[in-house]
Formats: sequence, C-alpha cells, structure tokens
Amino acid sequence: MLWRDLKVWQVYGANTDVGKTIVSTILCRALQRRASPNGLLYLKPVSTGPQAEADDRHIRHHVPGIVSQCISQFSKPLSPHLAAQLDGDASIAASDHDIVRKVKDHLAKHSQAGGRYAILETAGGVLSPGPSGSVQADLYRPLRLPTLLIGDSKLGGIATTISAFESLHIRGYDLESLIVFDDPQWGNYGYLEKHFSRHDIPTVALPLPPPRRQDPRDDEAVLSDYYQECAESTAVTSLVDHLHQKHFSRTSKLTSMPSQAEAVIWHPFRQHSIPHNIIAIDSAYGDHFQAYNQESDDALASPTPSHSGLTPLAAHAPPKPLLTPLFDASASWWTQGLGHGNPDIALTAAHAAGRYGHVMFAHAVHEPALDISYNLLSTLQNPRLNRVFFTDNGSTGMEVAVKMALRASSLRYGWAKDEGSAPVAILGLKGSYHGDTIGVMNCSEPNVYNEKVDWHQPWGHWFEPPSLIMRKGKWELSIPEEVAAVELTQTFDSLDSIFDFATRKDDAARYQAHIEATLTNLVRDQGKRFGALIMEPLLMGAGGMIFVDPLFQRTLISTVRSRPELIGDPVENSTNTSKADWSGLPVIADEVFTGLYRLGRASSSSFLSNPEDFGTPSASSSTQPPLPSSIAPDISVHAKLLTAGLLPLALTTASESIFQTFLSSSKADALLHGHSYTAHPIGCMVANKALDEYRRMDNDGTWENMKRPWSPSTLSVSTSSSPVYSFFPPTLVTTLSHHPRLTGCFALGTVLVLKVASEGGGYNSSATASLQARLLTLLNSEGCGIHSRVLGDIIYFMTSLTTTPEQVERLSKTILQALDHE
Amino acid sequence: MLWRDLKVWQVYGANTDVGKTIVSTILCRALQRRASPNGLLYLKPVSTGPQAEADDRHIRHHVPGIVSQCISQFSKPLSPHLAAQLDGDASIAASDHDIVRKVKDHLAKHSQAGGRYAILETAGGVLSPGPSGSVQADLYRPLRLPTLLIGDSKLGGIATTISAFESLHIRGYDLESLIVFDDPQWGNYGYLEKHFSRHDIPTVALPLPPPRRQDPRDDEAVLSDYYQECAESTAVTSLVDHLHQKHFSRTSKLTSMPSQAEAVIWHPFRQHSIPHNIIAIDSAYGDHFQAYNQESDDALASPTPSHSGLTPLAAHAPPKPLLTPLFDASASWWTQGLGHGNPDIALTAAHAAGRYGHVMFAHAVHEPALDISYNLLSTLQNPRLNRVFFTDNGSTGMEVAVKMALRASSLRYGWAKDEGSAPVAILGLKGSYHGDTIGVMNCSEPNVYNEKVDWHQPWGHWFEPPSLIMRKGKWELSIPEEVAAVELTQTFDSLDSIFDFATRKDDAARYQAHIEATLTNLVRDQGKRFGALIMEPLLMGAGGMIFVDPLFQRTLISTVRSRPELIGDPVENSTNTSKADWSGLPVIADEVFTGLYRLGRASSSSFLSNPEDFGTPSASSSTQPPLPSSIAPDISVHAKLLTAGLLPLALTTASESIFQTFLSSSKADALLHGHSYTAHPIGCMVANKALDEYRRMDNDGTWENMKRPWSPSTLSVSTSSSPVYSFFPPTLVTTLSHHPRLTGCFALGTVLVLKVASEGGGYNSSATASLQARLLTLLNSEGCGIHSRVLGDIIYFMTSLTTTPEQVERLSKTILQALDHE
Repeated sequence: MLWRDLKVWQVYGANTDVGKTIVSTILCRALQRRASPNGLLYLKPVSTGPQAEADDRHIRHHVPGIVSQCISQFSKPLSPHLAAQLDGDASIAASDHDIVRKVKDHLAKHSQAGGRYAILETAGGVLSPGPSGSVQADLYRPLRLPTLLIGDSKLGGIATTISAFESLHIRGYDLESLIVFDDPQWGNYGYLEKHFSRHDIPTVALPLPPPRRQDPRDDEAVLSDYYQECAESTAVTSLVDHLHQKHFSRTSKLTSMPSQAEAVIWHPFRQHSIPHNIIAIDSAYGDHFQAYNQESDDALASPTPSHSGLTPLAAHAPPKPLLTPLFDASASWWTQGLGHGNPDIALTAAHAAGRYGHVMFAHAVHEPALDISYNLLSTLQNPRLNRVFFTDNGSTGMEVAVKMALRASSLRYGWAKDEGSAPVAILGLKGSYHGDTIGVMNCSEPNVYNEKVDWHQPWGHWFEPPSLIMRKGKWELSIPEEVAAVELTQTFDSLDSIFDFATRKDDAARYQAHIEATLTNLVRDQGKRFGALIMEPLLMGAGGMIFVDPLFQRTLISTVRSRPELIGDPVENSTNTSKADWSGLPVIADEVFTGLYRLGRASSSSFLSNPEDFGTPSASSSTQPPLPSSIAPDISVHAKLLTAGLLPLALTTASESIFQTFLSSSKADALLHGHSYTAHPIGCMVANKALDEYRRMDNDGTWENMKRPWSPSTLSVSTSSSPVYSFFPPTLVTTLSHHPRLTGCFALGTVLVLKVASEGGGYNSSATASLQARLLTLLNSEGCGIHSRVLGDIIYFMTSLTTTPEQVERLSKTILQALDHE
Repeated sequence: MLWRDLKVWQVYGANTDVGKTIVSTILCRALQRRASPNGLLYLKPVSTGPQAEADDRHIRHHVPGIVSQCISQFSKPLSPHLAAQLDGDASIAASDHDIVRKVKDHLAKHSQAGGRYAILETAGGVLSPGPSGSVQADLYRPLRLPTLLIGDSKLGGIATTISAFESLHIRGYDLESLIVFDDPQWGNYGYLEKHFSRHDIPTVALPLPPPRRQDPRDDEAVLSDYYQECAESTAVTSLVDHLHQKHFSRTSKLTSMPSQAEAVIWHPFRQHSIPHNIIAIDSAYGDHFQAYNQESDDALASPTPSHSGLTPLAAHAPPKPLLTPLFDASASWWTQGLGHGNPDIALTAAHAAGRYGHVMFAHAVHEPALDISYNLLSTLQNPRLNRVFFTDNGSTGMEVAVKMALRASSLRYGWAKDEGSAPVAILGLKGSYHGDTIGVMNCSEPNVYNEKVDWHQPWGHWFEPPSLIMRKGKWELSIPEEVAAVELTQTFDSLDSIFDFATRKDDAARYQAHIEATLTNLVRDQGKRFGALIMEPLLMGAGGMIFVDPLFQRTLISTVRSRPELIGDPVENSTNTSKADWSGLPVIADEVFTGLYRLGRASSSSFLSNPEDFGTPSASSSTQPPLPSSIAPDISVHAKLLTAGLLPLALTTASESIFQTFLSSSKADALLHGHSYTAHPIGCMVANKALDEYRRMDNDGTWENMKRPWSPSTLSVSTSSSPVYSFFPPTLVTTLSHHPRLTGCFALGTVLVLKVASEGGGYNSSATASLQARLLTLLNSEGCGIHSRVLGDIIYFMTSLTTTPEQVERLSKTILQALDHE
C-alpha cells in the first residue's frame, strides 16, 4: 500500500509492554501538527483486553480530533490467538485475509478522504500471534508497510530488540527507524544506536515516560505534559522529517526506476529500440508482485487537457495508489514454486548462508549437497539414474548433459574428433529450446533465437513432432507434413485418452515406421553421426508452448533403444557392464521447465509411460509409481522449480553407465566442468526444502481439488498413477476452446496456453500484445491485475504450486473478461 | 568443536531471566546420572554480578561433584559489554578471540581427561553483547556448538522466543531443542511446540520453578526437590536421549559423508577412478572450514596392528576432535570476499528473499538490480561502459560478452554467417580460460580442459604471452619463442618497475612490431576473420596462474585499436556515432577472477594503465583513478567476488556503442539471452552489500598494512594510484623465490603462486600433491591446517579480502614449514 500523499507507518514492539502506544501517541501528536484534524488515522487492527483500556481510546483521548479505529477487539488480555478462541468468533473476524482486507479498506478510504498520515499499531511483539495464529509480521506482510520498531529499554533489551529487527528484516520489511526510551540504568540506547547505524537505520531516543501517580488526575496531567514535550522535541521533529524524507525517496525512487533502468540496464530478450512499458517491482508476496506501472501512472499524472477549458477529470479523481498488485502469471519465468517472499524459504537460505556461505566443492562434500542429491533421485524415481552433477542453471545443466552423452556415444561408436568431418550431431524435435549458452543453442534447429548468434552451428536432426491442442471442445492432433502420409487418429474426446497408449498401438506402429525410415536415410544414406536423443518431455516451452504427442516421444525413445543398429556399430569392448547401460543413444530429458510438478508430476518423463510398461500393475497409491526403465532417460536436467523460485541452481543426473564413460587412469578424461559456485549450500538447502514441500503436497492431498475434475470417468488407464490434470479446470479449457478470439488452447499442470487468432504470428508477432496490456490494467474484484508473458501468438498463464483453486478461479474470470473486451 | 565421546551443548536464553541457569542445573543433574563424577563440565564463559550469586556457584552447589567454571567474571550486574568497561580490564580478558580460545582449551582438556558432557551457559539473551560488544551468537559462532534455547514463558514470550530462534538460525546454529516452562497463564508452550515442530525441533515443557520462600533454608530444600524431580522426569530423560541421538546422528552422518558422496555425487574436475580423499565440510566461518578429514580419522580409528602384541599406541592417544579447522586457501575456488558465514551477508540475503524471492526481470526492474548496475559501473570507473547485462556465472557472462562482440564486429566488417567459411574467430592469449560452457571453451586454444569435449571448436588465434615470475629474488620475464627474436628487458628489480611503462617504451615498440606482423600474416595472408580481443588482465587463472606481462596486454589493445585496418575494412555506415565507439576489435576483459579487488584493485584492467595515459596527473587520492579510455575494455565480465562468496551471479558490462549494435526495429535482432533467474534479487542485494564493503575497505585504509611494504621507495610511477601490492609480504615472496623446492613464485593482491620443481608438470602432474596433502594435516599453533588447490606443478594460496595480516603471517609460516618438510 503506497500513495504519493498518504504516508502510512506500522509500529512494532521488540517485546510486549515496550511502549508502542506511548510512542504511537507521541507520533500522532507530532503528525497532527502537520495535518488537518481528520488528515490523521490511527488503526489498531487487533486489540485484546477490556475495551475501556484499549489503545484506540487512549489515542483518541490524547490526540483530540484523530480518527482512531480498532478493527478486532477481543476481551481477554491474552495473546490474540488465545483471546480470539475464547471470544469464540475467531473464524470470521480473525482470518488473516480478512484483517488485511479491512486494513486495506480503511487506508484506501482514508486516502480518498484526503488523509495525509496513518499509524497502524500492532499487538505484542513482532512475532506475537495474530487471531488466526499466524505471527503478525507474516500476517501484515502483504501490506509491507514502512516500519517503526519500538526497542526494549530494559535489561536484556538489546538482544530482544536486535532479534526483533532481524525477524522483520528477513520478512522483507523496511525499518525506517528504531525508537527507544533512554533508560540510563541499562544503557541500551547507546549500543543499539551504534548497531542499527551499521544497517543505516537511525535510532531515536525518547525520555522515559513519567511514573504512574496515585491520583489519576495527576497522572493524566503529567502524561499529557510528557506527550506534549515529546511531540515538540527536536528528536521527534527530526524523526518526522526523516520519515517524510524516506517516503519521498521511496516514491521518487520507485517512479524513477523505469527511466533509470532505461539508462543502464540491458534487458534480456528485449529490443531496446522498441519502446516498452517497464514494470517497477517494489516487492512480491505469494503469487503477487507489488508493482509500479508507469503507463497507468502517467495517464493520471498528465491528463489530456480538456478542450472545454474545464479542469480535467483526473484532478478530481481520488488519489490512486502507486502500487498495484499483479498476479505473477509467468511464475517469474517458470520458476515459482512456493510463493514469493516465503518466510520459511528466506530463513532456510539464511541458515545455509550463516552456516557455510559458499564452500569449495571439488573433492569436498557438505550436507546440503549430499541431501539434495539423494532427495532429487528419490523424487524422480528413475531406476537408471544414480549420479548427480551440479551447475548453476538449466542452460549449463544441459551443457553438461550434452558433454556426457556425446562422450558416451563417441566412445561406443569409435568416433574421433576430426577436422574433416562435422561434429557428432544430436536427434531432437523441432520447437526445442535448451538454454542460451552457445553449446546448447547448437542442440536446437535454426530458429529466431539463434539465427543471429554468430557462433550458432546447428548440429542435429530435428523431427517435426505431432502436437495437440483443444479446439471447440475437442483435442486435435496436428500432424506435420513429414508424417502426414501415415494415417493417424486425429481427435480425442478427453485429455486422458491421449495418454491411453494401449488403445493407440496402431499410431505407435506408424510413428515407429516414420522414425526408422528417417534414421535409415540420415545414417545409412547420408552418413550422419548422432550422439544423443534430447527431448523436453510433453511440453516444449520457449519454442512456443507446444504440447507434443507423448506417444511420439515415447516411440522415438523406444525405437532408438530397440534398434541401435540404426545409429551405428559399437566398437569392440565398448559396451558397458552397468545394468543401467544405454542402447542406441543416451536419452537426455530436459526437464528444466517441465519437471518437478510444473506439469503435475515429479518427473515429466513419466507422462511417456504406461501401466503396461511395468508388467503387473503396481500397488495403488496416490503418488506416482517409479519410471519404467524402458522410457526412463539416461540423463535428466533439473532447475527452475528446483529452488522454489529463489535462486539459480541446476542438477544434471546421470546413469552409472554414463558416469563410467569418464573413468580412466587419466585426469584429462574426467568431466572437466565446474563453476565456482558449484553446489552452493544456499541453493542446495533451499532445494531440499522445496522438494520436501512439493512431495508433501503431492502426498497429503493438497492438489486433490484440482485433480478431481480431470479424473477420467471410465478408466482404461490404471488408477495407480495420478491422472493427467491441470490447476486450471477442464470447464475453463473447454469454454476457452470455443472462444472466437482463440484458435486453440490447452492446460497441463500449472500451465494454461492460449493461441490467439492473428495474422502472421511467429516470434515477431504482436498479436498478443494488446491482450497482455489489457490484463495488466484490468483489475479484478481484489484490485489485482495479471502480469503475463507472450511467445508470438501464444499467451500463457502459469501458477505456483501453492496457488489455491480460489485464486485460479479469479485468474480464469479475468482472462475470460479480458478476452471478451478485445 | 566436535568429538565422538564428548558431547557439548550451549544454552541460550530467548531473553534475560528466562531460567537458563535453572535449566542448566536440571540438565547437569540429568547428565550426571549417565557420567562419572568428573565426566561433566559446566562452563560459564562470561558472568556479571556479584560472585556469591554467580551461576557456576549455583551449579556447583546443586550438582555436587561437577567441574564448574566461569572464565570471565565481571562484578556489576549489567550487560557484559558495560560491566567489562566498568571493571576496566576489558581489553585483555574480554576479546572475542580470547574467550573462544579459552573455551576451546577447557573443552579440549575436558575431552582429554575423558569427559563425556559439557554445558556452556551464555549470558542474557541470544544477541546480548559479550564483553567486547559483539553479540554472543556471533562471538561463539566459530565453535558452532549444538544449541538449546530456553524459551520465554511470559506474556509476549512467543514473539521473543521465535525471534531468538531466527537469530540463531541465520547464524548457522543447529537448535537441538527448545525448552520452556509451561506457564498455563500464558500458554506459550502449546503455540511454540507447534511452531518449532515445523522446523523439526522438539519443544520440552518443564514445570514452573517453585516460588521463592521467605526462609532461605526452605527455599533451598524446595529448589533441590524441584531439581531432582525435573532431572528424573520423563520429559528430561527423553530430552537427554534425544540429545544423544542427535549427537550420534551428526557424527555418523559427518563421518559417512565421504562414502555417501562417493555413491552419488559426480564431482567437478575429478577423475573418479583415481581414489581421492574427500573432505566433509561441516560448516565454515571467516576464512576457515570446519572439516572432517577421513584420512586422518581412519589413521586413528584403525591403527596399524603392532607386531609386538602390545596395544597400539593410538588406543592410548587422547581423543582427537572430529573436526579440524582448515584455512580455505583457494578462497573456495576464488570466490570469497567477506568470509564464510558472515551474518550481515546472511541477513542481506534473507532480506532480499523475504522482500522478493525471485521476480521476473524481462521488461521489469527492481531496486537491487538497479542499484548493483550503478554500483558496479561506478566501482569500475571505466569511461566506456554504461550498460549492464545479467547472467548467472562467469561462463555465461562470457558467453554474452562473446555474443555482443561478434555481432558488433560482424556488422561493422559486413561478415555474414556462411556455411562455407569458418566462423569469425577471436584473438586471445595462450593459457586463457573463460569458463566451461562450450561457447566460451571455443575462445580458448586447444588444451587439456577442452580436448575431450566433442563439440569444442577452437576459433581463434592465441598469442603466446611473455610472463613473469620471481626467481632468486629477481623478477624474470619469460619470453616465448615466437617473440624471442626481439630483444627485451629480461629482469626487473621490483614488482613496481614492471608496471613503469614509461621506462619500457622500447619493449612496447618491439611487442607492437610482433603483433602487427602476426596480424598481417593472419588476416592479409591467411584471410582469417577476427571478431573480438579477449583477455584476462594481468593474471590467467585456470590456465595455470600465469602472470602476464601487462605491457604486452597493453600493447595488444593499443595496436588493435590504433591499426584497425589490420583487422578489416568497415562496411559503409557501420561506424557508430557513440563516443564510446570501439576501434579495430571490441576488447573483452574477462575480470571474473582478477577483478573486484582479487588483485588489489577494483578493475584489473587498471594494471594496464599508466599515469601518462591521462595527460595531467589526477588529484592525489588513496583510491584508484578512472581507467584511461585508451586501455579500457569495451566489455567486461564480473562474477565470483561480486557476491562476496555466497552465490552465483554475473554481470556483463558493455559500452553504449556495443549496445547500439543490437538496436533495430526487429525483436529478432535483440540480444536473445536470458536465464530464468536473471538478476535474482538475492544475488543483486548481496552484491551491492559486497561492493559497498570492498569500497569502504579500499577507502578507509583497511589494507594499508599490506600495501606499505610493497610501496616503491623511488617513484617514477605516480603516487596517485595505489601501488601494485599483495596481501603476502615481499619478504615472504623473496624468501620463497630462493627455496630449492620451488622454481619460481609471485604474489599479486590476495594471490600467492608457487611453482613446484617437478619432472613433467602439466595438468596431469602430481608433483604438488604431496605438498598439498602435507598442508592439510600440518596444523599450525592454532590447530589449523591449510586447504589448498593445485594446477599441475602450480600450488597457489588465496585469501579473502578480510583476511588479517596476522592470519597471512600464520599461513606464510605454515607454507614455509611444509616446504622444508618435503
């Protein structure tokens, strides 16, 4: 919540009974000197104890004319979570969401009434529970109000004050000032002043409040004098100046960020000569950014002059908040798992930083690295994999995967690096994307991303894959020309039936014939050499959100594995003795985008499996069975969701067979790859926490409400595996598939993809730009817009793994609304 | 501090007066039931108040037979930092280092005497200041003892208890259990039990201590009964069992980590078929790891059986701690800046995580990204640079740099990507290394790192650079054969005189002639196309720690810039109007390793500059003057030290001229590169903090003691720039240069390089392995070994930027000792 004119501060105490209300009173009196009588609002969202002694009354009494409000008053003088329980109405008045909404409403109303200042006083200490039981610093976090901390001036107060600050700080609050009573007996002020100045936070000392008198009238008078003196003191006057200054610098920094960025930042994937609205992100929480949108602000600040000579309308419009909440519908480039600003993740990151920082990983090991290795392998349940290599992002993780696979196949087939012949190539699919480093760019066919990269050398063959999309309520298979000769099933009644490979045996045979013919032509006839089969299982992301027919990918793997002679002749003794030996080609699954529950399952390779791969059906369980060895990749790459959406880390997993390729008596044969921050503990520890949470949600039924509407009514697919499903309900997808503005759509896991009707299309298309712009400014009932990303004529929406069905519903409604507006 | 048999716990309070001593007494009584009378030690390192009421006395009284010790007793009942000041002897008895050393000594002695348990009770709250003023959780952090937290059971105690835990957690402590008095009036126990179970930390409830009686004898008896009951209670018995269990699982996990790692981890740069000692790092603080070294532990655990039939000596040897401190002398692969486990850095990381998590950077901006952009540019002081591009590590940062430069030169010289001709190549130096992704591997000449990478295609020409090393007190210039024809200065009296380019004009002219002849041959005669000049200024790291003659690099830049016709003919209208336009070739400085004060200066490119580059000398100042435009790179890449040694982030900076190359009306012409975690806020915010600290240290004289001995006595070099210097003193370097085991050495900034005499040499050499192994086990007077890395026949040592001269001296002594042992 941020306005240009209304300044709001929240007051926290380092402990209970440190004088929050006394300081709030002083502040209100000092602020009142700068505002009109009703320009000042005091809010006490939660109060416990008898009403007669309530803080809002105290304030009203001592700051005449102030608007002073308590939102929830509980009668017992206990911690609010207990008081709320005892008062019995906890469930309604006391939900976090409800309190935050009411605070927002009060502040918005105050702003509209021309309010200049508001003070929000919390209850107890920084981490005292609110009525629902959430600690207050978490409860109020969506508002992220600038904060004043009242220090503890008693013995031991240095410790409680600094700890309280640290708890606020790791939750992303800005502490504007520390305020302490200067009790010479303990001398906390001097120490704290020095400590907080290291964090650039000023400390204000106030005289101790007068001791209580016998006679309440004396008490009253003495207290009133004390308040008056304090409010007029230099310390408080400077504090108020400082608070104004901070407000001013925050708003001016925020509003100037877009233009400052233009001067110095070279944005990824941006054509800088095309003007673009830059969103300034102030902070983020859960699925939402708090963002300053220059375009909508400009519209307000410089209204079109009215020709009639009347004052433009905007001048009369109520002040608009500078920050708008935006649903992060690209999941911040497909990374978000447990929500932005997650306090448990922040704490985990800090623990790793405090215990290790970063430590050298060559010939060394530490607990977080070891734990995430075992954790990832047991999450993937791929019987081939047992080795983990660490790098920093999906692109570097794929570079390592390619180095692994090419070495393995070159050794087996006796291919040497040779000036004369072209490098060993890879097999892949058209529409692939494996990252931005040049080596993995070479794994993709020539396309818009790589055509201008001078060193891009496409080394491979890319099959055009059959793909799926829903149109007018039907799942349609798009069959590329190169396979169009064969006769295939063209439509499906349900998402589920696409995956019912048992009923699609004829299609599989036709795919296989096409693949065999192609390979024979490439290898036997053209003499090409292939060293790896690389695929993004089920969904190709950056290539344009292509939902690949899983049967085609499955058949590609099985054909390469069952007909190794199509690839080449192994040199003698080259076949590995490992039981996880590969056949034909090492299969690399690029699960950077699709894995770790992005599409609803731990490993996206599992979408290529079928119950019959196992022989006897596995025991019924809500979780996914292990991957069948027949379709399991030999190498898989994981990043993005791996670290819950906090920071870069990638893991490349490999089979023992691939690993053994690099063994010899020479150091020069080792995999000579390693980035400086390899296996940085902070990434590993956060990844462990993330995987634990994901698996917990998978097991405890968190996603049942999303799965249920997608469950097939008649099952030829075994019930032992979880259904193919999406966070977006099937009714929404069906509705969208009939929308005249769209030429198709689909949803898988947390991803919803819409293909927008347009002329031209392609990466340079701007057909989707107006829809994207509309979504940014079309606010839903909660005042929230949608921040989405487009890929040519595709617009997609993605949630985190903690997004609730209610949030998905709001998102869906807004999307439909925006489409209808077009 | 960790032993197999001796178990040590530290007791912290969530606030002062929460019952630490009462709980300690109960624990001691419970533990005494499991140990011999002198098997139990109670330590109170710091105590304030009258001795008669001191905690150690209370313990001695209530736990008869216990060894109970107070290390520093201050008479005033105040916070220790004030009490120490008042007692006047603060400076000696109260330094953090001294307290930690004494605690270590007591614990070691206790272990040697067969001690089984020790309890260390802290004073006040978790962050109460110790005698020096450091907060206790920082003061005791080097020991990282397993921790018990005594919760606050009063009103408000939920908040103080959780905050206290968070302060411990972000400092890397393991909290084994929370202990609270179950006061039904406030009900904190129930809430805390639930909260801490989410962190897998059990909470133990104890009955409230009996109220004080009038008659001290009553008091005594009641208290004694209370202690007895508690000590024998199920809650405390289970707690003690739990603590044993935790100790056991920690030691067994630690000792099994190396073998667990062998089963699953694919280590970077490791030939897994060659057995290698794996160091298990338990934690790290400042410049040190706390590590379990399997080799030295094995030697103890399975002593060689004695043929005489006597019990092997080791069985009588005193118990060895499981953890050894090791000086991190590779600075964890060249990353460390502000020390491991730095609490300010951990807090900064957590703040960014709490405020943002990660947020989308395409078409968006946030404060930490904007701040680090301006901060880095103003730190580098390169007049050409004004654009910042974000990636995740040095290798990806260099990939971007190469993409930038090749596009710029291809456009200027009208070179198209063309099937027939070889890709545009780069100019570099032999011995270069720019990272492990395939694109930047192509920037290095064929060498051991890339020869086995199937897709490595060396596209460039690499000059063999003249290099420097000190031998027998003299700086010698090694002149490669290709330039040997020219007559050059061969030795230098001082490090400083190497950089005195004004006196080396003849050398420069000879270098220039060689470079011009080479380019003429390559471009005119062989028709080669070059698109970038890439260099690691001054020191080539992974290529073998080669100290390149800065005059050669300087001359290479100036020749390429002053003779653009040697490279090619610009196509019409291709020359940029920007004042930062490049000439000849875009110059890329790979400062990933050498920059940001690793070699003593903000930008390592500044070593190639000379006062006369500026015309008039700049005003005298202790900081570095801006880079002269003549030698300033057009693109520079920064990582490693950028984030203070915490986590991966890289910045590629570029000139406006390079930036403008990518401008057009087509999105396809943009730099289409961007990793998911591009500009992740946690990395940006930590980098800001790091640069601020580095610049502060550069300006406030922190490094003066290191600079002074290197300052040239007679100066032809201007005093306005800081001297070329090293953290390692010149006397050490001179001594080492005479050592018979070495064939040369040098020191620059935080780096000391020794070339070890050996047959063969090269990357596969193991000549340095025995020296490295010796350093690991040869403990100095503080019981600390050295963890170093080797590169063939090179062994190097590297400090962080906060390493003190005293630490460098200890390091130097041990190095000399290890060499003499050989």
